[in-house]
Amino acid sequence: MSSQNSYRLLKEHKSFSGKTFFAEHDSVSTGTKMRFSGFIPEKAKPPKNAIVWLSGLTCTEENFITKAGSQNLLKDTDTMILCPDTSPRGSEYPGEHESYDFGSGASFYVNARTEGYKDSYQMYDYISKDIVQILKNEFRVQNISISGHSMGGHGALILGLREPQIFKSVSAFSPIVHPTQCPWGKKAFKGYLGDESSLWKEYDTCELLKNGRTRKDKILIDQGLSDEFLENQLLTHHLETVASETGQKLDLRYQKGYDHSYYFISSFLADHIPFLIKGMNH
Amino acid sequence: MSSQNSYRLLKEHKSFSGKTFFAEHDSVSTGTKMRFSGFIPEKAKPPKNAIVWLSGLTCTEENFITKAGSQNLLKDTDTMILCPDTSPRGSEYPGEHESYDFGSGASFYVNARTEGYKDSYQMYDYISKDIVQILKNEFRVQNISISGHSMGGHGALILGLREPQIFKSVSAFSPIVHPTQCPWGKKAFKGYLGDESSLWKEYDTCELLKNGRTRKDKILIDQGLSDEFLENQLLTHHLETVASETGQKLDLRYQKGYDHSYYFISSFLADHIPFLIKGMNH
Repeated sequence: MSSQNSYRLLKEHKSFSGKTFFAEHDSVSTGTKMRFSGFIPEKAKPPKNAIVWLSGLTCTEENFITKAGSQNLLKDTDTMILCPDTSPRGSEYPGEHESYDFGSGASFYVNARTEGYKDSYQMYDYISKDIVQILKNEFRVQNISISGHSMGGHGALILGLREPQIFKSVSAFSPIVHPTQCPWGKKAFKGYLGDESSLWKEYDTCELLKNGRTRKDKILIDQGLSDEFLENQLLTHHLETVASETGQKLDLRYQKGYDHSYYFISSFLADHIPFLIKGMNH
Repeated sequence: MSSQNSYRLLKEHKSFSGKTFFAEHDSVSTGTKMRFSGFIPEKAKPPKNAIVWLSGLTCTEENFITKAGSQNLLKDTDTMILCPDTSPRGSEYPGEHESYDFGSGASFYVNARTEGYKDSYQMYDYISKDIVQILKNEFRVQNISISGHSMGGHGALILGLREPQIFKSVSAFSPIVHPTQCPWGKKAFKGYLGDESSLWKEYDTCELLKNGRTRKDKILIDQGLSDEFLENQLLTHHLETVASETGQKLDLRYQKGYDHSYYFISSFLADHIPFLIKGMNH
């Protein structure tokens, strides 16, 4: 157990007989304090499984655990959920706090290479190392899966494709599937990774699949058809094509009338949680 | 149908096949624009029943509909929910925006008599007249029930006790049951009603019961035992005594380990919704 990764409990709320909690710890990967929230069902002592939830642009560790209704869906399982913050906090890099789609609250879950950001925006490592270590060593879980929304859906997919030995199952809501080809992704990757496009492809779901980083198991994705970002940012149809070409098994469900909000996530989370748990118990 | 009470849809999000919405209207009772949120299940065309949810101190029309998970519980029913804001907005009365427990976000659901506040803080009438009229005329519901949390639990109880012909069933989470005897209530009632204590009693659950304003049906209340406000503000044990003395049927459930938060509300809402619906279908 790494003492640096020991977490400090900030708040705890009894929920559905289990515990909703907020915590912080000193991250090795980011070199900063990082916060996360989570829920542990009553009978999970310790939890057998964990779902890591990655949130989208502008979110913190709080959005999902407050809005998605996950506690009700997990209450009778032995699976916990852990929701990390979406970026390091407390720094003052150039442009870090000026826009909603770059810098604080917008890490895109990459390991940054650019001046300033490289010092703490190591979010790929933060999720795949620090958070995984906490789940295994502190919460003593056996299996881990990953899911997320929008930028966090992108994070769940790239981490799931690159780290299949860590993440036993993967799903996403409204993910950014081809960030090297959309305005959000281009801005973020240029800002965090610089101009070298080979680096960008390591953090792009469609490009990872094209380069053979497929998973053996099926990925579940829900996407609202009234999502205002579908055509210009999410580019979901690119993934449809690439998955078909590369043989990646995909359950991509277009949901009529649903938008990009947490009202959409909460509506279909009841399908994702059993899907993720089934993959962990496989 | 009063044209003044017609509402304007501000936002709509498909949720659990139904609709989560935000709206505003020009209130006759407050003389101001007022906002509310709500959820209408897919099969409720029109909804047969409506639950009015009153929120607590500092809340707006948004807290409950975002955090409580009601959509999941209502999705297969013919019952809608409507969540009004907790006070008029946009005015600048003395002291209106200086504290969390008085003025904006803290109406206590009374009809104010004091200078300034009397012009728009007519929240008892707003709920029992404007909101009821909208539900009947615009949403075309047949039956209405009422519930709420903390200050809103107080609102639900006083409206339920005084207007049994309107509200067919009543429940509450963590309600302020004896506001004439607690710091929150004394501050609010003095500020909105002035010094005359006979007026105060018209907005106090324990005092209404003592004065014979009991309901024939049972009231359901959930109260967390780790609620930081239990001893000094909520005074739940006063209601236990008064209900017993007056014969008011009460299912008062003390929940071990639960606090005053929405994590508590969401944990037990699954019991309140069927209870309220049963009372409306009776």
